[in-house]
Amino acid sequence: MDASFSTIVSRLQALSTSDHTSVVSLNLFVALLLACIVIGHLLEENRWMNESITALMIGLCTGIVILLTTGMKSSHLLVFSEDLFFIYLLPPIIFNAGFQVKKKQFFRNFMTIMLFGAIGTLVSCTIISLGAIEFFKRIGINSFDIGDYIAIGAIFAATDSVCTLQVLNQDETPLLYSLVFGEGVVNDATSVVLFNAIQSFDLNHIDPRIALQFIGNFFYLFFASTMLGVLTGLLSAYIIKKLYFGRHSTDREVALMMLMAYLSYMMAELFYLSGILTVFFCGIVMSHYTWHNVTESSRVTTKHAFATLSFVAETFIFLYVGMDALDIEKWRFVSNSPGTSVAVSSVLLALVLAGRAAFVFPLSLLSNLTKKNPNERISFRQQVIIWWAGLMRGAVSMALAYNKFTSSGHTHLRDNAIMITSTITVVLFSTVVR
Amino acid sequence: MDASFSTIVSRLQALSTSDHTSVVSLNLFVALLLACIVIGHLLEENRWMNESITALMIGLCTGIVILLTTGMKSSHLLVFSEDLFFIYLLPPIIFNAGFQVKKKQFFRNFMTIMLFGAIGTLVSCTIISLGAIEFFKRIGINSFDIGDYIAIGAIFAATDSVCTLQVLNQDETPLLYSLVFGEGVVNDATSVVLFNAIQSFDLNHIDPRIALQFIGNFFYLFFASTMLGVLTGLLSAYIIKKLYFGRHSTDREVALMMLMAYLSYMMAELFYLSGILTVFFCGIVMSHYTWHNVTESSRVTTKHAFATLSFVAETFIFLYVGMDALDIEKWRFVSNSPGTSVAVSSVLLALVLAGRAAFVFPLSLLSNLTKKNPNERISFRQQVIIWWAGLMRGAVSMALAYNKFTSSGHTHLRDNAIMITSTITVVLFSTVVR
Repeated sequence: MDASFSTIVSRLQALSTSDHTSVVSLNLFVALLLACIVIGHLLEENRWMNESITALMIGLCTGIVILLTTGMKSSHLLVFSEDLFFIYLLPPIIFNAGFQVKKKQFFRNFMTIMLFGAIGTLVSCTIISLGAIEFFKRIGINSFDIGDYIAIGAIFAATDSVCTLQVLNQDETPLLYSLVFGEGVVNDATSVVLFNAIQSFDLNHIDPRIALQFIGNFFYLFFASTMLGVLTGLLSAYIIKKLYFGRHSTDREVALMMLMAYLSYMMAELFYLSGILTVFFCGIVMSHYTWHNVTESSRVTTKHAFATLSFVAETFIFLYVGMDALDIEKWRFVSNSPGTSVAVSSVLLALVLAGRAAFVFPLSLLSNLTKKNPNERISFRQQVIIWWAGLMRGAVSMALAYNKFTSSGHTHLRDNAIMITSTITVVLFSTVVR
Repeated sequence: MDASFSTIVSRLQALSTSDHTSVVSLNLFVALLLACIVIGHLLEENRWMNESITALMIGLCTGIVILLTTGMKSSHLLVFSEDLFFIYLLPPIIFNAGFQVKKKQFFRNFMTIMLFGAIGTLVSCTIISLGAIEFFKRIGINSFDIGDYIAIGAIFAATDSVCTLQVLNQDETPLLYSLVFGEGVVNDATSVVLFNAIQSFDLNHIDPRIALQFIGNFFYLFFASTMLGVLTGLLSAYIIKKLYFGRHSTDREVALMMLMAYLSYMMAELFYLSGILTVFFCGIVMSHYTWHNVTESSRVTTKHAFATLSFVAETFIFLYVGMDALDIEKWRFVSNSPGTSVAVSSVLLALVLAGRAAFVFPLSLLSNLTKKNPNERISFRQQVIIWWAGLMRGAVSMALAYNKFTSSGHTHLRDNAIMITSTITVVLFSTVVR
């Protein structure tokens, strides 16, 4: 306890001396965010553009400018930090999605969402892992072990719930939105189970008992995370109803809702649960119970403040991904072996397509069999859209790839750098071409 | 440029590896914030308590608990970082104060506020500096030079605008509120001028030319900061009026206002101006122009969202100050020479009282001479309240003291530690006893 305490202390102390360069970076970053919002708004009529692509493009352009001014040394203002992403940017986005989701539509398709999120992700992960084992050796990448391959599978099997919000519109296509977005939330739990599995099991000796443990783990994680979110949401409703009865204060109510939602996410992280699942359900419960116990102005404020926070966080992420795409360090390795890099990216893209096709169509069929009303069935056209919309890989994939391939020792630097540049290629390709 | 870039990079990288201990700290901190809000609300009827004192108390208790569990090694969850304070917590508080200020009252007393903020702070600073030079040597503190003494004067002459918000109520005592709070905002500019002066002038050779430069600097800083804030505010109004005409989007409007306000503060820091003054005037202009160009729901949202952010930031600061008050490292030096420490604290407290009295009463008299309407004059009772309310020293003094006495070399460790513990003593005393 003491040792880790003092490391945090020294880390924070290293950051605490105010540096003028960091003020410059922050200024530029805020100005770029503003530019994204204004330009994104001006291009709103344009079919091919939206805030995220604008942010991605502005990020790329800024990256080029910084690259040129620093003499090809650095292309970003801030280093991509998983903490920044998972602790500050992701929670408001997912919470807001839960807060604004159409609950009726979501719960009507609950079983299908679960099928897609749990079984689908497993199928997809298996196919991508096996495919990577099969093809990577032929391309000339030999340094990964079985754990690395499962990690690759998990990274590329995860639908990016943030990207999905950008492609599908809740009001225009409620069924598709709830299916694809719900899948993205549920498969976060699957990813956490897979990642934990990689660390705790000896993967060179696979036997049926491990498969059972897998399934048990998944159900434990899913229910524990959901319950945590639901309980925090209900607690917030209870506190506001009991304590504030008769003398409401908008600021306190809003602060309470915000902090409780954030606490639910952080508590899930504390207990090694799926924070995304927890904060999503916390959002659903808060919009269903807490929201009806607060004053009228609290209702307006929370609705728009949460949406604004989520909007800014999304823009921030895309701006960042665009800037980071040009990081010269990683591309240096690639320029030594351009063929390998293109091959890796293409193989991964093909595997993602195949892995997704392998579960969307069979599972949709299965889901249709249980529906008696033909209107509730998923048509073939909708299945194609689900397949295609869920293809997008975005900030979540990036963050996982960084987590896996930059911190775990620097023994296989070249292969790791190629994996990261390939992830970036897949992310850029799947976001822009859609 | 390159060197400083890479230091930031390495600093951020040191923070980026997610640590489970930091998750624990964040959880505890958010939970404590929630406790402050709920308990503060329950104690609302109590005359002697409010959210800030509750937060201070909870912080102290938590500090004791952490001190005991870590075996007297550490008493806080996060190290006090000036960056955290000046870059993230202070801007929303000051912006919100500008956004919600009663403009009519504020501008009617503008000259008096300027007198208090500029001349008053200088008088107070001079008295405290001279007093410290006089008394500190007798107590046994010899290691400070003239620059250190002026720094002590500047630190203790600065009225804490955050604390003032807690003591005076805008609705009940509008005149007093606008005078004391306005003084707090204006004297930030004075403090910046003084701090810059310490660094750039050779203080061992004081001549009249330097005094003139002082005055010139102050006027430049005051007008430049104000203009920057006003221009950013007007720009935000222009953008929203021109671009969003006819197709308003609440989320974009709120995001734009938030980011523009923050940008104004950061730009002031970039150009070495007074960020507090800039963001305060930006808030005033935004509430006067921008706010009337947005949709009804944007109006409700910004009003409450800014207030909530400010409220949470204030609670955070007081919670933090409470926790940090018990930092064992600093008190170790004090326990070796308890007499000196008590003497320093008492001397400082007495000097603050005297320094404040030396300008509040004469300047109020001067201000009353210019007012023809007897109702607008400042009565003697009100003068006493101004004197007393402005005495409070809080988070701003703490941050300045840390800035000055922990980073500037570790040659005079004992004296510096005594200065910091004395600051804490003065802050605690003036917040609780009032």
